Amino acid sequence: MRVLILGGDGYLGWPTAMALAAKGHDVLAADNYLRRTICLETDSEPLLPVPTLAERAELFQEASGSQVRVAVGDCADMRFMEWLVEEHRPEAVIHYAEQPSAPYSMMGFEQAKLTLDNNLGTTFNLVWAVLRHAPDCHIVKLGTMGEYGTPDIDIEEGWLEIEHKGRRDTFLYPRQAASLYHTTKIQDTDLLWFYVRTHGLRVTDLMQGPVYGLSTDEADLHPRLAPYFNYDDIFGTVVNRFLVQAAAGVPLTVYGKGGQERGYLNIKDTLQCVELAMNSPADKGELRIFNQFTEQFTVLDLAERIQAAGRLHSLDVAVKSIPNPRKEAEEHYYNAAHSGLLDLGLKPHYMTEDVLGEMLERVLRNRDRIDNRKILPRVKWS
Amino acid sequence: MRVLILGGDGYLGWPTAMALAAKGHDVLAADNYLRRTICLETDSEPLLPVPTLAERAELFQEASGSQVRVAVGDCADMRFMEWLVEEHRPEAVIHYAEQPSAPYSMMGFEQAKLTLDNNLGTTFNLVWAVLRHAPDCHIVKLGTMGEYGTPDIDIEEGWLEIEHKGRRDTFLYPRQAASLYHTTKIQDTDLLWFYVRTHGLRVTDLMQGPVYGLSTDEADLHPRLAPYFNYDDIFGTVVNRFLVQAAAGVPLTVYGKGGQERGYLNIKDTLQCVELAMNSPADKGELRIFNQFTEQFTVLDLAERIQAAGRLHSLDVAVKSIPNPRKEAEEHYYNAAHSGLLDLGLKPHYMTEDVLGEMLERVLRNRDRIDNRKILPRVKWS
Repeated sequence: MRVLILGGDGYLGWPTAMALAAKGHDVLAADNYLRRTICLETDSEPLLPVPTLAERAELFQEASGSQVRVAVGDCADMRFMEWLVEEHRPEAVIHYAEQPSAPYSMMGFEQAKLTLDNNLGTTFNLVWAVLRHAPDCHIVKLGTMGEYGTPDIDIEEGWLEIEHKGRRDTFLYPRQAASLYHTTKIQDTDLLWFYVRTHGLRVTDLMQGPVYGLSTDEADLHPRLAPYFNYDDIFGTVVNRFLVQAAAGVPLTVYGKGGQERGYLNIKDTLQCVELAMNSPADKGELRIFNQFTEQFTVLDLAERIQAAGRLHSLDVAVKSIPNPRKEAEEHYYNAAHSGLLDLGLKPHYMTEDVLGEMLERVLRNRDRIDNRKILPRVKWS
Repeated sequence: MRVLILGGDGYLGWPTAMALAAKGHDVLAADNYLRRTICLETDSEPLLPVPTLAERAELFQEASGSQVRVAVGDCADMRFMEWLVEEHRPEAVIHYAEQPSAPYSMMGFEQAKLTLDNNLGTTFNLVWAVLRHAPDCHIVKLGTMGEYGTPDIDIEEGWLEIEHKGRRDTFLYPRQAASLYHTTKIQDTDLLWFYVRTHGLRVTDLMQGPVYGLSTDEADLHPRLAPYFNYDDIFGTVVNRFLVQAAAGVPLTVYGKGGQERGYLNIKDTLQCVELAMNSPADKGELRIFNQFTEQFTVLDLAERIQAAGRLHSLDVAVKSIPNPRKEAEEHYYNAAHSGLLDLGLKPHYMTEDVLGEMLERVLRNRDRIDNRKILPRVKWS
C-alpha cells in the first residue's frame, strides 16, 4: 500500500515508517523537524542524539534492505501538503504531525499559538489535500485519550448514546481536555467529523494513551535507529522521567497525590494498532474511533512498578510528591473502554517488570548523559 | 462601563455599539471590514450602501449626541488586539468578530481556511489579551444555535447532565454543526471552555439563532444608520431573502422540503440580550451559556408568514421548492430550551405580521436596487 506518514520523524512516526516499510509498504515519511526545534529552544534534548531523517533512512536501508522515502517540509503549508499527496497518491495517511507536548502548549502565548496553528493547520490541509487529490484515501489520525479528560462516567470508544427526556441520539463522546495541546486535538476531531459527514472522507481516529518503550523489531536493528527518548518535563512522559530518575539515583517526582489514572501502551502496540487500522479502513463517510491503550495505571502505580524494576538492577528508588504544576484531578474515577482494537486482532505487550527493566538498563548504560535539571517541571498551568 | 465591541461594523456589531453608547457606556468598536471585503469579492453587496465606521460614528453623534469610538484593524493580529485591550481597558468585551457566513465557509479551501484562521485566531487573541491586560473583564461571545445542529433529543442551554451506566456527570451539550463556519464556533467554545477552567476567565457564550430586523431605537434615528441588509445567498439569511423575493415578485425559494426548524429573534432582542448578559457578568472561572432566540419556525412557516405580510402590501407571493444546496436534515425533531435570558429580564419582540410588513415596506421602497441573481444559491456543500 502507498502510505504517507506525517510527522515521520517523531517518537512514533519513525518507528511506524520502518515497521510499514519492513512489511513491504511504499512509505513516504514527512516532517518539518518541529519537535527538534522545540527541544533545542527549551533545552529538552533527548537522552541519545537522533540522526536526521535522511540518515535514519540510510541506516535503515543498510540494516534491513527496506526503503523509507523522506521529505522535510511543513504540513501546515498547503503547498507542501498538496505536493506530498499529489506526488505519493497515498492509499493511507498516518497523521502524527502535531505539536504533542502539553507543557509546551502551556508555556505562553507564542507556544500556545504555535500549537493551535500547527495542529489545526496540518489537519485542515490534510483534509483538503485528500479531498482534492486522493478522495478514497484512508486517514488514520492520532488523537489522544486526553481529549476525554477525566469524566465521572465510563469513557466509551469515541461515541456515546444519550437518553434524555425519553428520547435518544448518539453523539461524539463529550470531550474536555486538561491542556491546550489536548484541546487542539478535540478541535481536530470537530474538523474531521465535519468533513467526514459533509464530504465523505474515511477517517480512523486513534485515541491513544501515553506510550512507553524503546524497542521495536526495526529499531532494534541498529542502536542509532532507536526512537526519541525524552526525559524532560516538556516531551518526556511520566514513564521515561521515572526511569531516568531511578537511573540517576534521585527520587521519582510524583505530581501531587499521584492518583492521576490513564491508559498506557507499549510502542510495539502503537505500531500494531496503526497497522490494524490501516489494513481494515473506515468506510467512506465514517469517522471510526478506537481507544488505543492496553492497561490503566495511576501515577503511583507507575512509580511502584519502576521501583520494582529498579530492584532488578539493585537500585533503591525513592518516591517524592511535589506540587502539581498542572491543573488536573489527582483522584478521580477512570474506566475507559478499549475493545475495538482487540477485536481487530491487537495482541498486547504489557508493562512487565522485564519490559521496564530492559528500558532501565538502556538508561543506565547512558547514565552519564542525564541532566537532572531537565526533569523537574519548568512550566506551570497558570 | 468601558465596553469593547469586536466586529463593531457588522449587522449586529454597529447596532450594539450605538445601543450601548446611548445607554451611557464608553464604547470602542473595532472591525477589519472583513464582511465588506467578502461582500465585494462575492458580489453580495447589501440592498442599501453602508457608510464607513467613521462616517457612522459621526452620523450617530450628530443624531444622538452620544459617542462611539471606532478603530479599524484585524483582531486576528495580536498587536492590534493587545493595543485595543491595553488602550481601552474594557470591563466587558462583546465578541462578534467572526466570518459569519456558512455558505462562504463552504465555497472552497481559501474561504474555509480564512474562516478557520480568522474565527479561531480572533478568539484566541482575545483570550490572551484579556488574560494579560484585563483579567477581570467579562467576555460576551456570540456563539450560534447552529453549534448544536439538529439532534434527536431536546437542546438544553449549553450543558447536559448525562447518566451513563449508573453514574452521572455534566458536560458541554454535544455539538455537531452543518457548516465549517458553525464548526469554527464549536472550536471557539472548546477554546473558551479550556481557558475558563484553567485560567479563570469569565465568559458568557450566547448561542444565537438567526436574527431578523432593521429597526432599533438608534438605527431609526437616521436612514443611513440602518444595519446591513444582505439578501444574497452568502450573507442574506432566509427572512431577508424571502422579503426581497416577495418585493421583487419572484417565488420564495425554499431549500428542499422546508422543514428545517430553527430559533429566530428580532435584532431588538439581540441588543437586549447582550446588554442583559453584560449587566450581570459571569463569575470568574464560569462559562455561562444562554440560548438566544425567542421563537421556533420551520422555513415553510417563515414562507407562509412572509406571504401573509405580502398580502398587507397587496402582493401575491408564490413559494417554490428548489434543490437544497446544503447537507442538512429537511425534516427533524427540534425543541430547544431558551429560558435563561427570559429569566434575566428579556422582553421579546415577536415576528408579527406588522414587523414583517414594516420590513417589507422598506424593501419595496428600494425595489429598484434588487439584483435577483444574488438570491439563488451559488454555493453547494460538496
